[in-house]
Amino acid sequence: MPKVTVTRRVRFNAAHRVFNPDLPDAENDRLFGKCNNPNWHGHNYILDVSVEGSIDPKTGYVLDLSELKKLVNREVIDFVDHRNFNLDVEFMKGTIPTSENIVVAFWKILEPKVAPARLTKLVLWETENNYVEYTGR
Amino acid sequence: MPKVTVTRRVRFNAAHRVFNPDLPDAENDRLFGKCNNPNWHGHNYILDVSVEGSIDPKTGYVLDLSELKKLVNREVIDFVDHRNFNLDVEFMKGTIPTSENIVVAFWKILEPKVAPARLTKLVLWETENNYVEYTGR
Amino acid sequence: MPKVTVTRRVRFNAAHRVFNPDLPDAENDRLFGKCNNPNWHGHNYILDVSVEGSIDPKTGYVLDLSELKKLVNREVIDFVDHRNFNLDVEFMKGTIPTSENIVVAFWKILEPKVAPARLTKLVLWETENNYVEYTGR
Amino acid sequence: MPKVTVTRRVRFNAAHRVFNPDLPDAENDRLFGKCNNPNWHGHNYILDVSVEGSIDPKTGYVLDLSELKKLVNREVIDFVDHRNFNLDVEFMKGTIPTSENIVVAFWKILEPKVAPARLTKLVLWETENNYVEYTGR
Amino acid sequence: MPKVTVTRRVRFNAAHRVFNPDLPDAENDRLFGKCNNPNWHGHNYILDVSVEGSIDPKTGYVLDLSELKKLVNREVIDFVDHRNFNLDVEFMKGTIPTSENIVVAFWKILEPKVAPARLTKLVLWETENNYVEYTGR
Amino acid sequence: MPKVTVTRRVRFNAAHRVFNPDLPDAENDRLFGKCNNPNWHGHNYILDVSVEGSIDPKTGYVLDLSELKKLVNREVIDFVDHRNFNLDVEFMKGTIPTSENIVVAFWKILEPKVAPARLTKLVLWETENNYVEYTGR
Repeated sequence: MPKVTVTRRVRFNAAHRVFNPDLPDAENDRLFGKCNNPNWHGHNYILDVSVEGSIDPKTGYVLDLSELKKLVNREVIDFVDHRNFNLDVEFMKGTIPTSENIVVAFWKILEPKVAPARLTKLVLWETENNYVEYTGR
Repeated sequence: MPKVTVTRRVRFNAAHRVFNPDLPDAENDRLFGKCNNPNWHGHNYILDVSVEGSIDPKTGYVLDLSELKKLVNREVIDFVDHRNFNLDVEFMKGTIPTSENIVVAFWKILEPKVAPARLTKLVLWETENNYVEYTGR
Repeated sequence: MPKVTVTRRVRFNAAHRVFNPDLPDAENDRLFGKCNNPNWHGHNYILDVSVEGSIDPKTGYVLDLSELKKLVNREVIDFVDHRNFNLDVEFMKGTIPTSENIVVAFWKILEPKVAPARLTKLVLWETENNYVEYTGR
Repeated sequence: MPKVTVTRRVRFNAAHRVFNPDLPDAENDRLFGKCNNPNWHGHNYILDVSVEGSIDPKTGYVLDLSELKKLVNREVIDFVDHRNFNLDVEFMKGTIPTSENIVVAFWKILEPKVAPARLTKLVLWETENNYVEYTGR
Repeated sequence: MPKVTVTRRVRFNAAHRVFNPDLPDAENDRLFGKCNNPNWHGHNYILDVSVEGSIDPKTGYVLDLSELKKLVNREVIDFVDHRNFNLDVEFMKGTIPTSENIVVAFWKILEPKVAPARLTKLVLWETENNYVEYTGR
Repeated sequence: MPKVTVTRRVRFNAAHRVFNPDLPDAENDRLFGKCNNPNWHGHNYILDVSVEGSIDPKTGYVLDLSELKKLVNREVIDFVDHRNFNLDVEFMKGTIPTSENIVVAFWKILEPKVAPARLTKLVLWETENNYVEYTGR
């Protein structure tokens, strides 16, 4: 059967502060500018979850995208939507909540959960002009 | 000369918490749900600023939209971008930072500043599915 | 209190056939072209529901948009999403399912339900290049 | 019958230079900045054409949007698409090709042509952040 | 000469019903939920057709995208636009019309037709939150 | 450290004429149609610049996207925004300004400048329906 990549887009809103607590304030200001606001700021994030597999002849699906949506919501979105990445999200503790670190943390959670389907890419949009991609390497 | 409405779209990111400090916690939870997260959440906001006027025959403009952009940035966006509506924004003090209250606060600041041009509408998008409009009434 | 218009965007998918059963086939072909396909075609519709009111000082809301979303889903979307406008939708029986007729039918249902808030506009997008608006006149 | 506003969106690409030939170069530079490049620049424009009318009970349409599209293409788009507003467009001769002046020129052409339907609004997007509206006043 | 991938986006509307005629009704309901509506539903589909090749020094093109558009319209879009995937589309007969199966069927038609250019990817959006990709493997 | 691809989207407006000065007029007309308008036409271009690298544990960034934005603006956008690709852009001299040739020219400039980070892809949108990608091969 042909191998197809299927993607489900999900959305969430969150607050964060981008800074390194091990660095002095002046260095954080230099590195992170207004993203280092101690009172937080936030974003409407978009996450594209891509899974590759053979088409199941019984269903015509690689996998049921409504099931994938439920899984992604249950495993990651419910922990970050309307939350603060620095204060509220257990799996981000000790990590600077940049989009790069967020997308890798999401991968670590989702990759084993979508098996036997194969997670092939996560894309995370922070604004309409910035996005990051991770493929597990 | 014909009267035309010209609009400049600007964007900003901010954190907020939607709650009424005069109400008990349980009531805030009931009224505002996850928007009441005490650790904040945030959005990528879009603001459309519309101004009406006659076309100036010398320039073909109602007004120079790059000047309008500078004015809007200087008067409102610089105070809210990468900020917390509850903690950082002087003109929102004592006001619940819903989109409705934000757009009215923006109007009060911008309306006198764009004169003699006439501010006719502000539209504020909080997410891709929610927006509010104010026309000064 | 200031009067603000708040809008909730909802989405649904549906099939339809645009034709007038009282007209001969040739006339339907002439009037409706490929939209008259007897085996149906379909769209991803977008509906913007706009309600005007004064800001409630207790909540900062005109009305709770998540409540408006529930109402719109319960009263109209659940009857049309993943349905056929010609065959499945009771309130469209006897009506040609153009966007014009759909938006007026939605209005008749929603207008009394959102009271005491005031429904001021419905916008229905059928494709990215076509939309219709109704204000109850 | 209910009155509904129907809108058709069309798109075109064009070059222009924004300057007033009656002014000295320095004044044009001051007024129009980089939009005054003597070698032109260009845009992907979006035009929304809105027409209001009663629903025709025979068709369920206010008017056939595919006919409106043909009319708009024939009367305005074919004269401006892949053209230069300053050099190629007869109906813009003697007019500074700002969005304000373009939208008014389009109105003058389209308003009599769509009768007996009633043209109610033209919206012209020049970039994703700038648009102008004209209602014939 | 450098190798560049060029993509043309096309759009179409269609109806479908997602179900397996070899399965009992209850199983179809369980597997496909509301997508199994016997009266059909529909979508505004978006298809991105990507072709890779060296830049032709004579034209600066990999291939003429307006020619690619005509080819894609003639070979696939004209057979599916404003149609029913289950009833009207010969090349989908015997196949469950999921996006996965549709994109593979499109590939089989387009891949030989675009030669000597090389088809490298098809992306099919069914809704703004779901899309599938196929690269011919 | 995990390898992540980060992308910054930038936008610019420009005029161009697509033709080969070594060919007779009739041949240019045949090959390029209305894109060969001698008085130019133009576009709102979108450019996605993608860079791959390991996450820096000190910052959580692959690289600072606001720095990447400044670099891209300084090295390419400032030379093309509100300009004419045929007349104003030194690095396009002698090259037909198709999207394919533009994206390769941008690559040649940007690839050495983003080092030690690794430029992995440029995507250039000319209209909402056409885009080209280059990965340096």
